[in-house]
Parts: sequence; C-alpha cells; structure tokens
Amino acid sequence: MFVVFEGVDGAGKSTQLLRCQQWLVELGYPVTVCRDPGSTSLGDRLRSVLLDRSELQIDNIAEMFLFMAARAQLVSEVIRPALATGNVVLCDRFLLSTVVYQGRAGAMDPQDVWRIGASATGGLSPDVTLIFDVPLQVALTRIGDRLDRMESRGEEFLAAVQRGFLAESAMLSGARVIDATGDAAEIHEQVRAAIMPLLAIR
Amino acid sequence: MFVVFEGVDGAGKSTQLLRCQQWLVELGYPVTVCRDPGSTSLGDRLRSVLLDRSELQIDNIAEMFLFMAARAQLVSEVIRPALATGNVVLCDRFLLSTVVYQGRAGAMDPQDVWRIGASATGGLSPDVTLIFDVPLQVALTRIGDRLDRMESRGEEFLAAVQRGFLAESAMLSGARVIDATGDAAEIHEQVRAAIMPLLAIR
Repeated sequence: MFVVFEGVDGAGKSTQLLRCQQWLVELGYPVTVCRDPGSTSLGDRLRSVLLDRSELQIDNIAEMFLFMAARAQLVSEVIRPALATGNVVLCDRFLLSTVVYQGRAGAMDPQDVWRIGASATGGLSPDVTLIFDVPLQVALTRIGDRLDRMESRGEEFLAAVQRGFLAESAMLSGARVIDATGDAAEIHEQVRAAIMPLLAIR
Repeated sequence: MFVVFEGVDGAGKSTQLLRCQQWLVELGYPVTVCRDPGSTSLGDRLRSVLLDRSELQIDNIAEMFLFMAARAQLVSEVIRPALATGNVVLCDRFLLSTVVYQGRAGAMDPQDVWRIGASATGGLSPDVTLIFDVPLQVALTRIGDRLDRMESRGEEFLAAVQRGFLAESAMLSGARVIDATGDAAEIHEQVRAAIMPLLAIR
C-alpha cells in the first residue's frame, strides 16, 4: 500500500506521517517512510539545489523538472522496491505537490504536469492521497520561522496552493481531505479512518 | 538564428563550434555561444551532478529530467534573450542529444522525450542542427582519455548513439549531417555551406 501525505506547509502532514508510521508498526506492518524530493542521494542533492534560491536563478519549468528527476529516482530506488517486498510506503509529498505548486499555483498547465509526471513515476499512483487542509492563518502560524524557498512566496501564493489542493482532490482517485485544524490526536483519528479500510482488504 | 552542434563525443563538434563562432564574428554577426547542459549557474550545478557517477545512483529517467531542467533554464536565461537581441546562438548539444542518448540508445521512447522536451524548450527549435558523423573508431581515438559518465558506456552504446543521430536526422527539420572524418578546415567548409543560406536570407 502506497500512502501519500500532501498539503500546504504548516498543515501538520509530517507530524501525522510519523504518528501514522508508529501506529502501523504497532499493528505489525513493515513500513517504509520517505519524502519527495529526498530519500535518495540524488534527491538530497537536488533538494539542496532547490532550496538554494539565494545563489541560483531557477525558472518555473526547470524547477518542475528538478522535482520530476528527484521523483523518478525515488520511485525506482525506494518506493517500487519497498512495495515489491510488501512494505507499506508512507511518502511526504509526491506528484500532486508539483501539479499544485508549479501547475495550479505556478505557470504550468496542471494537465501537462500530470502528463510529464506519468513518465517520472512510470505510472505508479498512490492508493491513498491524504490532503491536510487548514485555514491559511493556522498554517502560517505553524510555519513560523521555517520559511525557505518553497514557503516564502507570500500569502497569495499559499492561498493559491491551498485552493489547488482542494480543486485537485475533487478529481483525484483515492484522495481524502483531512481537516487538520484540530489537535494532533484528533487528526490522527481521521488518518486511521482513511487508511483502515485498505488494511482490512489486505 | 539558432544553430545546434550535435554528434557523438569525439566527432569534433566543440572544435567546429569555436571555429564557426570566429567566422561569424569576422563577418560582423553578434554571436552567443553556450552548451547544454551548462551555461547557467543551475546548469553547471546539474552538469556536475550528472558527471558524478561514482557517488550517485542515477536512474535513466531521472537523468533525462536533469537534462530537461538544465535545458529549460538555458532556454529562458540565455538562448531566448540572446535571440531576442538579434544574436546568432551556437549551442553545443540540445534536445536531440537527450532524444538519442536517453531515448534511442537508452530506455525511453524517443517520442516521449521529444514531447517532454517541448515543455523544456517552450517549443523553441533550432533553425539548423548540424550532426557531426564519424566512424566509431575515429571518435574513440579522438576521445582518448576524456571518458566521463556520458562517454564511458562502451562501444556498443556509442554505436547505438551514432545510429540514433542518423535515424533522427532523417526526420528532423533543419538537420544537416556533416561528414566529420576529414581535417578541421574541410569540415569547417561544410559547416559554412550549411549556415550560409540562412545568413543570406536575413
């Protein structure tokens, strides 16, 4: 089972991913945790390139391709092997983030990003995509000083990202919007409820 | 005018590019020279990532996306601005190289690479693509010890690359195959003959 955690920064998805991992491990499932971009040597190199906005001029389309390169490597080096050995894979962001950030909130046609993304993933789609949704002010407060290249484009951009996630969720198979305004335990209950039916099937 | 120099390593394209530049400058044309990947800060960073095969595992598709990222940046930061100011642009490799190396000689469908490449270039195509062709043994002798990640995949791979360039040249608008077996002066004459008609039109 391949589960992706998505949403604006500050929605709490990384915290919930760890909590979900602990829960699944306690249930006896082997779990692989990764993040996109990252979790491979190439992905880490590209992640540092992407975060290095002070020195590098990076065009919107070039940026999209860097995310795709990191993703292609992550799929072939980590995700496919983990799924093949029967692990549950929990991934912090995936293709939907690029569709939303570089597509809906960026300069590209979201359909072009999905199409190019299919080459990066080799057609692999998440079984469940959890979209963590919070009011923008909550996200901004939670982010606090953790502003980097991806998070520092202003409130208007973040609002476009949030709208983008909700718009895509309506059309995406396996998408579940999680109301992430409450406390961590309450949000974790929603995550369990979304994943439980798939565990039962297996 | 946008001229691309293509071919296997050791075909002499880089030498001929410099010679062509000198000739055009003497004729009074403003010339911009670049190489793909490279010629931008991002491109240089990615070039070093691509050449770093000793430390990094890089999947064929991830590699293709890295070339596309460098290319998108090169087009927006260097080539389009140069063409807009009326410069002749001479570029050492471009999209065709990715079609041939990662497509025809690699694991991807060449048509997929052309399609993804159209997003990287924003639809910009060379006016002329010069494809430098030499017998494989000549190329190997010329390369000598200059073997890096791109050039060290063995003779069979190089032969597939060479066949790939010729096959694509038959279908590519503006493609001209240059017989690069002779001496540099004789090859330069072929380059002039290929470019001259476009200079006359302008």
